[in-house]
Amino acid sequence: MTIQEAREKLTALQQKMAAFEHASSLIFYDGATAAPKGVADNRAQSLGILSQEMYLLGTGKETVELLEYLDANREELDDHGKREVQLMLKDIRMMQKIPMAEYVAFQKLMVEADDVWHRAKENNDWASFEPVLTKVFDFHRKIAAWCAPDREPYDYWLDRNEEGATMESCDRFFATLREHIVPLLKKVQSKPQLENRMLKGHFSAQDQEKFARELMELIGLPMDRVGLATTEHPFTISLGSHLDERITTHYHEDDFSNSMYSVIHEGGHALYDTGSAPELAYTVLDCGVSMGIHESQSRFFENIIGRSRAFCEYIFPVVQKHFPQVQGSAEELYRAVNRAEPGLIRIEADELTYALHVMVRYELEKRIFAGELEVKDLPAEWNRLYREYLGVEVPDDRRGVLQDSHWAGGNIGYFPSYALGSAYGAQYLRKMKETVDVDACVRAGNFAPIDAWLRERIWKYGSLLTPAEVFRNAVGEEFDPTVFTAYLEEKFTDLYDL
Amino acid sequence: MTIQEAREKLTALQQKMAAFEHASSLIFYDGATAAPKGVADNRAQSLGILSQEMYLLGTGKETVELLEYLDANREELDDHGKREVQLMLKDIRMMQKIPMAEYVAFQKLMVEADDVWHRAKENNDWASFEPVLTKVFDFHRKIAAWCAPDREPYDYWLDRNEEGATMESCDRFFATLREHIVPLLKKVQSKPQLENRMLKGHFSAQDQEKFARELMELIGLPMDRVGLATTEHPFTISLGSHLDERITTHYHEDDFSNSMYSVIHEGGHALYDTGSAPELAYTVLDCGVSMGIHESQSRFFENIIGRSRAFCEYIFPVVQKHFPQVQGSAEELYRAVNRAEPGLIRIEADELTYALHVMVRYELEKRIFAGELEVKDLPAEWNRLYREYLGVEVPDDRRGVLQDSHWAGGNIGYFPSYALGSAYGAQYLRKMKETVDVDACVRAGNFAPIDAWLRERIWKYGSLLTPAEVFRNAVGEEFDPTVFTAYLEEKFTDLYDL
Repeated sequence: MTIQEAREKLTALQQKMAAFEHASSLIFYDGATAAPKGVADNRAQSLGILSQEMYLLGTGKETVELLEYLDANREELDDHGKREVQLMLKDIRMMQKIPMAEYVAFQKLMVEADDVWHRAKENNDWASFEPVLTKVFDFHRKIAAWCAPDREPYDYWLDRNEEGATMESCDRFFATLREHIVPLLKKVQSKPQLENRMLKGHFSAQDQEKFARELMELIGLPMDRVGLATTEHPFTISLGSHLDERITTHYHEDDFSNSMYSVIHEGGHALYDTGSAPELAYTVLDCGVSMGIHESQSRFFENIIGRSRAFCEYIFPVVQKHFPQVQGSAEELYRAVNRAEPGLIRIEADELTYALHVMVRYELEKRIFAGELEVKDLPAEWNRLYREYLGVEVPDDRRGVLQDSHWAGGNIGYFPSYALGSAYGAQYLRKMKETVDVDACVRAGNFAPIDAWLRERIWKYGSLLTPAEVFRNAVGEEFDPTVFTAYLEEKFTDLYDL
Repeated sequence: MTIQEAREKLTALQQKMAAFEHASSLIFYDGATAAPKGVADNRAQSLGILSQEMYLLGTGKETVELLEYLDANREELDDHGKREVQLMLKDIRMMQKIPMAEYVAFQKLMVEADDVWHRAKENNDWASFEPVLTKVFDFHRKIAAWCAPDREPYDYWLDRNEEGATMESCDRFFATLREHIVPLLKKVQSKPQLENRMLKGHFSAQDQEKFARELMELIGLPMDRVGLATTEHPFTISLGSHLDERITTHYHEDDFSNSMYSVIHEGGHALYDTGSAPELAYTVLDCGVSMGIHESQSRFFENIIGRSRAFCEYIFPVVQKHFPQVQGSAEELYRAVNRAEPGLIRIEADELTYALHVMVRYELEKRIFAGELEVKDLPAEWNRLYREYLGVEVPDDRRGVLQDSHWAGGNIGYFPSYALGSAYGAQYLRKMKETVDVDACVRAGNFAPIDAWLRERIWKYGSLLTPAEVFRNAVGEEFDPTVFTAYLEEKFTDLYDL
């Protein structure tokens, strides 16, 4: 086999994997959007078989030999080839450590868990979710033990979501946040609260959907390649490649800002994925590299841009066009969407209290993996931590431990990415402002220069660079969470006249 | 290999095929429902690869040896096993005659054709569709030549849609229809036309969707396993097995009866598929056996039941519940939905003129395969035949040659199934009435006895019996299209007071 032949085989292999990914992702997406309620078993049947095919394809002799051959001759590969081989070998070596039957069982469990969670949340029924969530955590513990027997299981899962993240780095990061956010929030709470009544009323799902599509277009999404649907919990998914992206939202008919910010958030994810360089399609380098960098895009658009004064100035007349009943001014909108107030729901949280929601989840996951907490005690501990960190009483599990889809979807170790991503964004902003008049662009509804900045420094690379490389490449310095806390301090000092 | 081992392998193989079918069907379904407009290429990429995998799986040495071994030992198999082997071998021997690259190219062409057709219909742009439709017909000619070199190509495609159908049998069948329908229609046209104004007005898509769901429930669909979506052209598809079925419709906001009958029609297909015996799931025996038998279910529900006086008596108050603006009576509704009038659109045609629409398409397909007609001349010939058979002038291709999705979807040789299915239904009705008081059941909205009759005689068999066996099994006699024409004669003589 010549290098050239091997390279071609590698390309074909990745294309095949992408087609399988397309199929599995679409079955999941369909399950969350269009599928009737009673077909989860049918979905699990097909996903089980497809995941077995993917396992066999990934760990098969031919694949392993090909990758080992290419790895041994890596000096003859270009940057893309090197990184493809590296990422694929990493994945395969992990997969090889998981027995196939367990791998398949895990995929099926995820379909079941997601299905059970949907109904449990709808019916506020923790008891029905507890057994399957116990299985989910047990499975994650087993997988970590197989794949990284010498590491703490939770460190394994943190690293899977954000390469390099550990409990130690997260503890440090959250300590820094806590150190700044807790006193800042105290000061905010000593001041008169900002008014947000203008966000409330009745806003039909259809009107909100039209607004959502205008928002998607505004931030620069290629509308012919990005779909919008409604789900219980908003998410973003790419199907086969960055050339077909879907975002979802959930319309709350009593508050237009809820879906507005979820669309901008998911839109940020979709900008990142669809911004991959065209030649990355159907390779393992396609789409965003990690959850932390992903969330840094979504939360940058949602908050740093979307909750800025400049954005409110641009969007206020657009809001009034779609919802003529909305009264007030751009400045009032700015204050309304930045009302800092400890609440129950993470995805509805303001920028200041958001990290506290993440800390609750981080804390709980950490203690479960450490064996200090059992799944059955999660609701009580959830409620206790919400009281302690946010000072709120959780009235029911639907608005408590059942609110997020992540655990049911097997996204364990994911939550810290939201806080990390939020913090990365403050450094992007500082750097971006050196060359782009961000406020002027946003105020004019001109996202092209902002998108161009992000595309050149982050999006186009897909997974070619590691998360740390992407970050350094974008801002030219190391990650420093105090840039984020300083941003919060400045913003909320102004807003609340501290 | 023991028979038992081989039998288990056969089961696993069919499950794998079902998972691949699930993936491909879902990619198609997504393309027609939720996908953004610019992602057909991405869909073609994945479908191309998945179809290649299916080709390799189907024609691979291991599969062929397994099936040949089981075929040689067929006496040791039960009825299910025998039929599975027979159907799979038939398919595989056909597939083996098509070069793999051509097989894959064909699948990709279908994605392209469907995509181009959607835009062509929307823009009334035949010119954009002509080149790809030419390719579609050429490909069908090639496939017929590979698979059945000693047969007329069109006979091959007719048989693929309804086992046993040939040009000769179709010519005879359509001649019988023509002989009765043409004079009957003449008589109808000499009488005062029935009024159908009550069907017109403004009916929002949302209201129609609620009505559609009530109709689906009424006819007995298992709603937790059957989804409803909107598409340009209504269709029914099962995903992986009969345990997940989807129907689609198209809401015309100026006429509630359009979507009403398309939902009942597609609902009939879905009843047939979902009525497969549970043990058929994930085997090649799952779901309906042929297009003719399929259409016999859908058109039975749409017309023989749905356009009966009894049904109008049941449904009229339901219509008024959903659309309070509808005035009149059940009898007026009965007359309105049976107004016989040559029109432009097949799926909107009444029971009497429907077959004429089918004959136009049959005629055109036949002549294309015979080399007597070129694709480029289709619009002119379409319009000429509509003038000749139906006496109407086609104002544009959108309402002419571009109206149906079938050719773009590779469903060539399909159209006669609609007329065959319509005719089968008249014999079902006659037989069913021997043991079920059909009118009384329908008038009471009680579909259970009707569904039970069809389930026991037709649905539960899936593809276990051949179409001819299903038919004989259901009615205990041979197919006789004059039962259908007599049914029409009786019905329209009464309606038009002939």
